[in-house]
Amino acid sequence: MVETMRWEQGSLVLLDQTLLPQKIEWITCVDYKRVKVAIERLEVRGAPAIGAAAAFAMVLGAREVADKPDFLGALDAVRADLITARPTAVNLAWAANLQYALAVRLNGEDKSPAAIIKALEEKAEQIYADDITMNKRMGEYGAAVLPDAAVVLTHCNAGALATCGWGTALGVIRSAYAQGKLKMVYADETRPLLQGARLTAFELFEDGIPVTLITDNMAAWTMRTKGVNAVVVGADRIAANGDTANKIGTYGVALAAKAHGIPFYIAAPTSTFDFSIATGAQIPIEERKANEVRHFRSEQTAPEGVAVFNPAFDVTPAELITGIITEHGVLKAPYTESIKKLQALLQD
Amino acid sequence: MVETMRWEQGSLVLLDQTLLPQKIEWITCVDYKRVKVAIERLEVRGAPAIGAAAAFAMVLGAREVADKPDFLGALDAVRADLITARPTAVNLAWAANLQYALAVRLNGEDKSPAAIIKALEEKAEQIYADDITMNKRMGEYGAAVLPDAAVVLTHCNAGALATCGWGTALGVIRSAYAQGKLKMVYADETRPLLQGARLTAFELFEDGIPVTLITDNMAAWTMRTKGVNAVVVGADRIAANGDTANKIGTYGVALAAKAHGIPFYIAAPTSTFDFSIATGAQIPIEERKANEVRHFRSEQTAPEGVAVFNPAFDVTPAELITGIITEHGVLKAPYTESIKKLQALLQD
Repeated sequence: MVETMRWEQGSLVLLDQTLLPQKIEWITCVDYKRVKVAIERLEVRGAPAIGAAAAFAMVLGAREVADKPDFLGALDAVRADLITARPTAVNLAWAANLQYALAVRLNGEDKSPAAIIKALEEKAEQIYADDITMNKRMGEYGAAVLPDAAVVLTHCNAGALATCGWGTALGVIRSAYAQGKLKMVYADETRPLLQGARLTAFELFEDGIPVTLITDNMAAWTMRTKGVNAVVVGADRIAANGDTANKIGTYGVALAAKAHGIPFYIAAPTSTFDFSIATGAQIPIEERKANEVRHFRSEQTAPEGVAVFNPAFDVTPAELITGIITEHGVLKAPYTESIKKLQALLQD
Repeated sequence: MVETMRWEQGSLVLLDQTLLPQKIEWITCVDYKRVKVAIERLEVRGAPAIGAAAAFAMVLGAREVADKPDFLGALDAVRADLITARPTAVNLAWAANLQYALAVRLNGEDKSPAAIIKALEEKAEQIYADDITMNKRMGEYGAAVLPDAAVVLTHCNAGALATCGWGTALGVIRSAYAQGKLKMVYADETRPLLQGARLTAFELFEDGIPVTLITDNMAAWTMRTKGVNAVVVGADRIAANGDTANKIGTYGVALAAKAHGIPFYIAAPTSTFDFSIATGAQIPIEERKANEVRHFRSEQTAPEGVAVFNPAFDVTPAELITGIITEHGVLKAPYTESIKKLQALLQD
């Protein structure tokens, strides 16, 4: 299976996902700014992967400001700068804030910057390893709710490449495949940046898992004609009522699934939940550059200057969601209650 | 306004729509085979435009076989060959069969091949002119059912470029704009061949009509957040019960419109109706090459060899359709009845 990132001799080495599937190239990040740029450019993407990358970026940032008289203040500035890279994914702020809080605590215990940096590095490596463990657990929970001879439609890439390994939505698919209950995956290509074509089709094809690529606008017709019996997608942020922000197009897929009576699952680690917001209406939606829609890579596809609406995410209302697959089990409606229980569990 | 085709000194000159919006180049067809190839390659596309091109192709074909002893038999072979170019659009067969029937009738009246060719040419020019007249009439009927300050979402290109001029769905939009009641058009880019980006955005932008380009997977979210109050699309074939085949993705748009309570209109000339088939289940759905989905022009977007499902059309069930805008008025449910009345009207 392709690696998303690795921590190597004090540097974060990222697979450049913008070049897939044609080229496999690695980016060595020696300072936190390069990680920030990688997040902005989507060289690394997917909420869990962004979280882990941010945790490592905090190590790099701490090393850069280790000699400053106000080490903590400087690290806070790194944190604040880093989390502006992408506004929708909650894991980015989650990991950066977690690392900063650890530094604050150790500083209060009179630990040296060097000792703090060492602890941050261990924490980042733990976040990385935990992500893979969580994904495998999520995969087991998810595979259990899929029907036999599952024909699963997925959108975007919530795969090994969106995480530290195994994947969330594709982790569920990998686990179902390992159990012999997966018949076919239909992967939406996911315009404008084609994460479904470039990444999901790529990683499933590489692993020998049966996958058929479709364009986004074929999803509803595929549901109607190809026996799709489950939809599984990832998430970038989940509100306390279950409303879920995910890659643009997820909402349309959820509406089509509802119309066909097909169960629609979100697969996401608990770090994706934002307990502080009541509903999806409070989730900021990143809008990206017009040329992502007017062009495809080197190719112009529309008149220069034509207006574009380019939201990177949409919000699927909780009522369209059959279940939210987490590493602690599958949450069901009413989500306000099941998510409250999850929050209590995490605070224990 | 850009021209789709013109009949010039006995040749059919077609705008090469595969090169838009970057290049405006013309293809001069001196034999029917070149028109057939143009239909196959989508150099000319859109059901009404294909119909007119086929009518002219029959003139070219008739000229090519004028010296054959069995003129009618040879012309029938041209007709049969021509209509294999694309299986879904009914207008192709409609126009070719109409021309052939005219030749059979004139032959029965002992007309010479030269006289028959002359008559076919006049008929083709009439089909061309009638199409523009019909579109303007359809535009008036359609604009009347749109709300004031209309925010219209459209899919694919049912525009001037899909017809001989003015357009069907975009004809409705042009008429609404001329009446000052159009606020904004959201145009789906329409993967895989991007007719929305390349053609709809192009022709509306050229005409100064307010248009915003989105990717197909943004349609549902745009409906939810941007005040879309009507959907208008074209059609490739309409069954006797109102089920409508149109560009892949139309069905998903119809489901999303239904979920948001947004009226969903088809705009199509009566030549698009196939009274011989009871329901959409009988409409053949063309499947196109996998590389249309795995590539975008020169760019590979997915692993070579990955499986692809690439239907060119889908069928929107009649119950999702608010009205069918024709040159004879707007048909409403129950469609079995309103379409039967239309058929009677046309046979008068």
